Amino acid sequence: MSAAATSVGTLKLDAMTTREIAEAAKQASRGLATLDEARRTAALAAMAKALEAASAELLAANAEDIDAAESLRGADALPPATLARLKLTPAKLREMAAQVRSVAALPDPLGRALDAIEMDAGLEMEKISVPLGVLAVIFEARPDAVTQIAALAMKSGNAVILKPGREVERTAVALVSVLREALAAHGLPQDAISLVLGRERVSELLGMHTLIDMVIPRGSKSLVEHVQANTRIPVLGHAEGVCHIYVDKAADQAMALRVIDDAKTDYPAACNAVETVLVHREIAAEFLPRLAERCLARGIAMHGDATVRELMRDVPAISTVDDWHTEYGELELSIGVVASLDAAMEHIHEYGSVHTESIVTADAEAAERFLREVDAASVMHNASTRFADGFRYGFGAEVGVSTSKFHARGPVGLEGLTTYKYVVRGSGHVAGDYRGEHARAFTHRRKA
Amino acid sequence: MSAAATSVGTLKLDAMTTREIAEAAKQASRGLATLDEARRTAALAAMAKALEAASAELLAANAEDIDAAESLRGADALPPATLARLKLTPAKLREMAAQVRSVAALPDPLGRALDAIEMDAGLEMEKISVPLGVLAVIFEARPDAVTQIAALAMKSGNAVILKPGREVERTAVALVSVLREALAAHGLPQDAISLVLGRERVSELLGMHTLIDMVIPRGSKSLVEHVQANTRIPVLGHAEGVCHIYVDKAADQAMALRVIDDAKTDYPAACNAVETVLVHREIAAEFLPRLAERCLARGIAMHGDATVRELMRDVPAISTVDDWHTEYGELELSIGVVASLDAAMEHIHEYGSVHTESIVTADAEAAERFLREVDAASVMHNASTRFADGFRYGFGAEVGVSTSKFHARGPVGLEGLTTYKYVVRGSGHVAGDYRGEHARAFTHRRKA
Repeated sequence: MSAAATSVGTLKLDAMTTREIAEAAKQASRGLATLDEARRTAALAAMAKALEAASAELLAANAEDIDAAESLRGADALPPATLARLKLTPAKLREMAAQVRSVAALPDPLGRALDAIEMDAGLEMEKISVPLGVLAVIFEARPDAVTQIAALAMKSGNAVILKPGREVERTAVALVSVLREALAAHGLPQDAISLVLGRERVSELLGMHTLIDMVIPRGSKSLVEHVQANTRIPVLGHAEGVCHIYVDKAADQAMALRVIDDAKTDYPAACNAVETVLVHREIAAEFLPRLAERCLARGIAMHGDATVRELMRDVPAISTVDDWHTEYGELELSIGVVASLDAAMEHIHEYGSVHTESIVTADAEAAERFLREVDAASVMHNASTRFADGFRYGFGAEVGVSTSKFHARGPVGLEGLTTYKYVVRGSGHVAGDYRGEHARAFTHRRKA
Repeated sequence: MSAAATSVGTLKLDAMTTREIAEAAKQASRGLATLDEARRTAALAAMAKALEAASAELLAANAEDIDAAESLRGADALPPATLARLKLTPAKLREMAAQVRSVAALPDPLGRALDAIEMDAGLEMEKISVPLGVLAVIFEARPDAVTQIAALAMKSGNAVILKPGREVERTAVALVSVLREALAAHGLPQDAISLVLGRERVSELLGMHTLIDMVIPRGSKSLVEHVQANTRIPVLGHAEGVCHIYVDKAADQAMALRVIDDAKTDYPAACNAVETVLVHREIAAEFLPRLAERCLARGIAMHGDATVRELMRDVPAISTVDDWHTEYGELELSIGVVASLDAAMEHIHEYGSVHTESIVTADAEAAERFLREVDAASVMHNASTRFADGFRYGFGAEVGVSTSKFHARGPVGLEGLTTYKYVVRGSGHVAGDYRGEHARAFTHRRKA
């Protein structure tokens, strides 16, 4: 058990079982599903305001997490980047509150008529977007994840159970406490935003497929794979992002360099950063030295196949590609030469992670074949893989990126936190009237 | 291993491992995904024609299945209804061919632009519907399932691996053989329609989550639950259909009787048949005798809670409800009395299977609360639960009914066999241009 507080409003972290917490969340989700947009928006506004008002206590809780983290030594010590993400400041808190307000301002994802059909006179079917129910989100040492996830859940009418990383537990407890109080003050169910601490709680949550509708693991590849392998609950996320850029023989080479540079250096740790560049054989001798020059200038370490190493004999320090499946997450790049567009697509299907794949070419036909035939969540032509992102796609907010083909694929916005139901309104209609000799016929008129 | 033929065109049922069969299907699916609608429609026309042309050999293969089935004795003997479904006739074959043609005539589910956004000048994103990839379908003793599933898969650009029930193996092999020849004659990959026999192959298929994109179990509750519990592959289907009709205090009682009668007797074995009727306390004394009269007239056995049994003391043979979770699948009905709309909804959430729930009432407010608050794939007002069906909803074809909230929910048509991908077309756009001091702004203009 952690050193964090053990009670968050009505939530008794020690005294309640994980099942009790999940059941309370399910109960709260039923209430949420009936709230109209105005009430959900008001709740989000209250949440943002409460975060600002509680600034002092939130910073104090965070200071305890920071103290504990800084006292870790040796193998347990946190990397500076993690420490920086863990730390709350007044400015960061204001940003978090602003983010909650911007989620509030997004179009309502609920109650949209996705389809509407008149089945017969007086018998109408509507397909309406509704919340999923209860989300369980497992995340690492980021305080802003708490408020962002809580805001997305509230906007989409879902209850959420948060499981923060150990380093951020005190901050998370303080944040959830503030958010729950804001809900309660508005007559909304506190258990719409809930929390569990401790690794053993995760295993328990993963077993509750009758209470939890979706798990979102945000973290390392091993975390995501562990979750995927150990639950019957649908998982939203991706374990890896091994993205490719294929430089076709008809590529504008200067454009290819610019796109590769951006896709590798803009944010190397991102899942949509490029890991492998494939170059068409016919331009390899000309293009590879230019690519090497760019990589050296940008501090990108190169790993090549035999052809690449042969063609770049003069370039120092090109190592062999050990494993085309590698997601470097750093300034490193695998480089290979392929005989054709087909060979490039085969390589991508063999080693890619169906996340994001891009072709650079001036040949429209080759581009269209690539866009059509490559099986990935995002496929791109003459553009950096880094554009595969919910904000850049215009979704306003991003829950994560899914490499599943089911439900939500690619960058996932609020829509990915909804499902739908069919609503049928009749006036005593019975199915038996539509069969047999004097059967009524369905009209099946699609409505606007 | 079965007594059926062991070779189906290029498919060597004995000599190939399940993995080899699945890999061949995956390979075929890549080819299918690139076919335009005209080629898929032509393939469906050829499949229909081939079925008619091969009538004699198909009937002969089916006669062997029928002989084998009829020779079963004792506990192994098939019920008459199963035998009837197993039997092919020239008329049934013509119907199956007609069904393939009607699937061909449905709107193309692929290549639809589900969204389109201009991210910036010259940088455009489209969200396009694409096939899932490889479907594995496990079904029971129905020859028509083979052609129906193969047609839906081809129309939606998916490869399919069929696992027929033991009783229909010879017929299934003959059908798949004819369909594969029709594909080959059109230069299409035979492995788009594939087959495995034997229970041990199912376990193998369920382990292949990197090759198979969706499993559709069509059969008993135990089959569906077994599949759900034993695979990481997304499962489309439902284990049970415990549907309710709530008769509100403001119900038109004659309408309620008509709707209940239809929902129970139209096809008692269907998953959308009603299993439980809940009656508001205030009208129970008046309504229950009328319901009992109707049930007796229609041969529906009644099971009641204590209140029902007390109110219907004079009605013979009302047994106690043993378990509100029971899906009778026969002319049997659980009947309960509830104190309010809220109590009815609580009961439904406790015992329902999130399939289809209906309210009968003249109170518009009560109806809207029920439609909004009840969490189920289909919710209905003044209509029989039997309307929850792909054909009746106007989808043209039904793959099955899903009680999952993920991907496809409720009656599932061709759309449920597709996913989407994001296609981005740029002209050398890089993400770095959209950050920092002189950042370009996204336009995010949604296109029609």
